[in-house]
Amino acid sequence: MTITATTPQERMHAARTASRSLGLLTDAAKADLLRSIAAAIEANIAPIVAANAEDLARGRADGLSTGLLDRLTLDDQRVRALAAAVRDVAELPDPVGRVLDERVLPNGLHLQKVSVPFGVIGSIYEARPNVTVDIAALALRSGNAVVLRGGSAAQSSNAALISVMRGALAEAGVDPEAIQTVDDFGRDGARALMRARGLVDVLVPRGSAQLIETVVTESSVPVIETGAGVVHIVLDESAPLEWATDIAVNAKVQRPSVCNAVETLLVHRGAAERLVPPVVAALQAQGVTVHGDDATAALAADVVPATEADWATEHMSLDISVRVVDDLDEALAHIRRYSTQHTESIITADDAAAERFLAEVDAAVVMVNASTRFTDGGEFGFGAEVGISTQKLHARGPMGLPELTTTKWLARGAGQIRS
Amino acid sequence: MTITATTPQERMHAARTASRSLGLLTDAAKADLLRSIAAAIEANIAPIVAANAEDLARGRADGLSTGLLDRLTLDDQRVRALAAAVRDVAELPDPVGRVLDERVLPNGLHLQKVSVPFGVIGSIYEARPNVTVDIAALALRSGNAVVLRGGSAAQSSNAALISVMRGALAEAGVDPEAIQTVDDFGRDGARALMRARGLVDVLVPRGSAQLIETVVTESSVPVIETGAGVVHIVLDESAPLEWATDIAVNAKVQRPSVCNAVETLLVHRGAAERLVPPVVAALQAQGVTVHGDDATAALAADVVPATEADWATEHMSLDISVRVVDDLDEALAHIRRYSTQHTESIITADDAAAERFLAEVDAAVVMVNASTRFTDGGEFGFGAEVGISTQKLHARGPMGLPELTTTKWLARGAGQIRS
Repeated sequence: MTITATTPQERMHAARTASRSLGLLTDAAKADLLRSIAAAIEANIAPIVAANAEDLARGRADGLSTGLLDRLTLDDQRVRALAAAVRDVAELPDPVGRVLDERVLPNGLHLQKVSVPFGVIGSIYEARPNVTVDIAALALRSGNAVVLRGGSAAQSSNAALISVMRGALAEAGVDPEAIQTVDDFGRDGARALMRARGLVDVLVPRGSAQLIETVVTESSVPVIETGAGVVHIVLDESAPLEWATDIAVNAKVQRPSVCNAVETLLVHRGAAERLVPPVVAALQAQGVTVHGDDATAALAADVVPATEADWATEHMSLDISVRVVDDLDEALAHIRRYSTQHTESIITADDAAAERFLAEVDAAVVMVNASTRFTDGGEFGFGAEVGISTQKLHARGPMGLPELTTTKWLARGAGQIRS
Repeated sequence: MTITATTPQERMHAARTASRSLGLLTDAAKADLLRSIAAAIEANIAPIVAANAEDLARGRADGLSTGLLDRLTLDDQRVRALAAAVRDVAELPDPVGRVLDERVLPNGLHLQKVSVPFGVIGSIYEARPNVTVDIAALALRSGNAVVLRGGSAAQSSNAALISVMRGALAEAGVDPEAIQTVDDFGRDGARALMRARGLVDVLVPRGSAQLIETVVTESSVPVIETGAGVVHIVLDESAPLEWATDIAVNAKVQRPSVCNAVETLLVHRGAAERLVPPVVAALQAQGVTVHGDDATAALAADVVPATEADWATEHMSLDISVRVVDDLDEALAHIRRYSTQHTESIITADDAAAERFLAEVDAAVVMVNASTRFTDGGEFGFGAEVGISTQKLHARGPMGLPELTTTKWLARGAGQIRS
C-alpha cells in the first residue's frame, strides 16, 4: 500500500486521523486485523526477503559487522516467525475499555476511569526489521496508530514490511494511514517525529543507550525511556553457595547481550573466602572474563584488574565485574552510585537483609534469590513486551499492552451542577 | 531552618539523599510529620505575615495588579487555612505500599508490583505562597522530597514558610533537606531544576499556560503537564432546556477564572431556536458577555460577534463563545480542533448521542448532563488535588496523592534461574 503524503507532518496528521477510527474498533476487530497482517506477511515472504537482500548487500558494502548483519537478516524462517509473533499478539486480551476506577458522587454523578488508546505512538529504533512488525502489532492491538522510524540500514526491509501491513489494513477496511514511516526522510524524519508534540502522544525509543539518550534529550513528545541495564547481584554474607553460583552464571551467561544480564557481583566480605573462589571459577568455566578488585584477585586466579569504568559499564558480553564490599550498606551505596535502576538482586538466607534490600533499592525490579534474567515481559506473563521502562513516569519495568493505553474519566449525570 | 547548600545542584543532591529515608517512613510517621508542620505554621503566623508584608510592599512598588496582590496576600486567617489544609492532607490514606499487581510464576517466583514514592518532586509555580505549603505537604505525605521554585514576587513569604517547614522536619527527626527551594537563584534556579534529570524524578509546573509551555519545552526532567482548559459544552438537539440553562450558567459563572469553567457552547442547529434565546438570556442575566456566531446573533440580543480567536481562547472571565453547529459531527470536529483535552460535556436526552460523545471525545474528562466544574480532585473525592493533568502519560485528569507515586516490582525467589 503506497504512501502518498509527502512530508513527515502530513503523515503524522494522517496517522492521527486514522487513530480516531482505530480507537473505536472492538476487541474482535483488532484481533482479526492482526491475523490479517500475519497472513499478509506470510503471503509476501518472497518480496520481503528480496527487499532484505538489498539491505544486506548495502550493509556488506558499507562494512557492517557480522553481528549487525545477522540482526538485519530476514530469511523465510524469520519472516514466518514475525507472522507468528503477530498472531500471538492477536490472542492477548484487549487492554482498552478496562474500568480502572468507579465512583458515584454524593450528588449521584457516576464516574468511571477507563483505559483508552494513547492515539498515536511513535518509535525510533535501530536496524532490526523485526521491531517494525513488533511495534506496529502492539500499537494496533491496543487501538493506536503508529509512526515508525527504523535504522537506515534496514530501510528496504522496513518499506516492504510496512507496505504489506498497510495493504492488510486497507483490505480489512481499516484506514491504512494508521501505520506510517518517516524512514525515507532520514534524520529529518527522526527530528520531525521528536518534535511532533500534539500529533504523536508518546515516543518509545528502542536501541542503544546513545540512541535513547538522544531521544530523551531532544524530544518534546513525552518519551518512555527503555534504558540500559547496569545490573547488580549482591552475594550476601549468608548467601547459599549453590544459589550464588547458579544465579550468577545464569544471569551472566544465558544471554549476555541483553539488558537484564548481570554486569557486577558485589560479595559480602564475610563470605568472600567462601564464595569468590567457586563463583569466579564457575563463571570462568563458561568463558566469562572476570574483572575484579584487589580482594577478588587475591581469592581467585585469572582475574583482570577492574577499573573505575568497569563499575559503570554495561558489558553486554561475557565480562563481569566483581567487588568485595564490607557489608550490605556498602553494597547499597555501590548500587545507588552505579545502578541504572533496571534490575538488582540479592542472594541471601537472611530475611532481614532480603527485606531491607527490597525496601531500599530504587530500581524497576528488585529481586531476592532469583536470576535477573526474569525481568522480561514474557517471563512476567504479559504475553508480549513493548520494552523495559527504566523511568518512573507512567510505566516502570517490563511493559505489556496495558502500558500502551492512557485513561479517560467518563461522567454520567442527570443535570448536576456544582454548588 | 537555614539552608546552607550554596548551589542548586547541591540542594537537589541533598533532597535526593533526604528522599531515601523519607521513602521508608511509615504511614503514621508521615501523618505526624504533616501535623507537626501544621502546628509549626500556626506557631509562626507573625513572622510569616511579616515576611509576606515585604513581598506586598515590593509588589505595590512594582505596580502589581490588585488581583495579583490579593493572591499574594497572607493574613492571620489565610495562614491558619494553610495549616488546616496540611492537616487535611495528613488524614489522607498513604498512597505508598499499595499492591497493584501480584503473580506467582510457574517456577514459584513471587512477584508484587507495589507503589513507591517517586523520590524527588520538583515544582515551578507562580506567586501564590499557598502553593509552597500545598505541594510540600502533598510531596511529603507521599514519601517524596520536594524542590520548589515559586514566583519571585512571593520570595520572602516562600522563604519564611520553607524555613518554618524545615524546622518542623528537623524537630521531628526527619532530614530537613527534604524541602528545598531554588527561589534565591532566580531564573538560574528554574533552569537548574528543569535540567536536573537523574536528581529530580518529575516536575509539576503550576500556573499560566505560558509558564507550563516553557517548562514542557525546556525541561529534560519528565513533566506532568497541568494545562489550560478550553472547555466545551454541547447542547444537543434533545437537550432539556432546564439542564442546558442550569449547567451552562453554573459552568461559566460559578468561578470563571478556573480551568474547568466552560469557554464555548456548541448548540445543535435543530435546537437553536428553542435553546439559544433562553440560555443566552440566562447567561447575560449573570453578567456574562456572549460572543456568538451569526446564527447565535440572529436568535438573541446583545451578542458580540465571535472571532476566530475566540474559539481557541480560555477567557477565564465572564465571557463565553457560542456557536450553532449543524449536528453532532460538526460539534465533535469543532472540539477536536479547539479542545485542550481537559473537560468536555454534552447535554442531551439521547442515549446514543451521549454514548457516542463519551466514546469519541479525546479529553481527560468527558461528561454527559453535568457541569464541567466537577473536574476537580476534591469533587472526585480524592481529598486533595496536585493539579489536573492534560497529558496522557502517567496521569490524566485530577491528580491525587496516588499520582505522586511510581511503582517497583518485588520478586521473591528460592534460587530460580531462567532456562
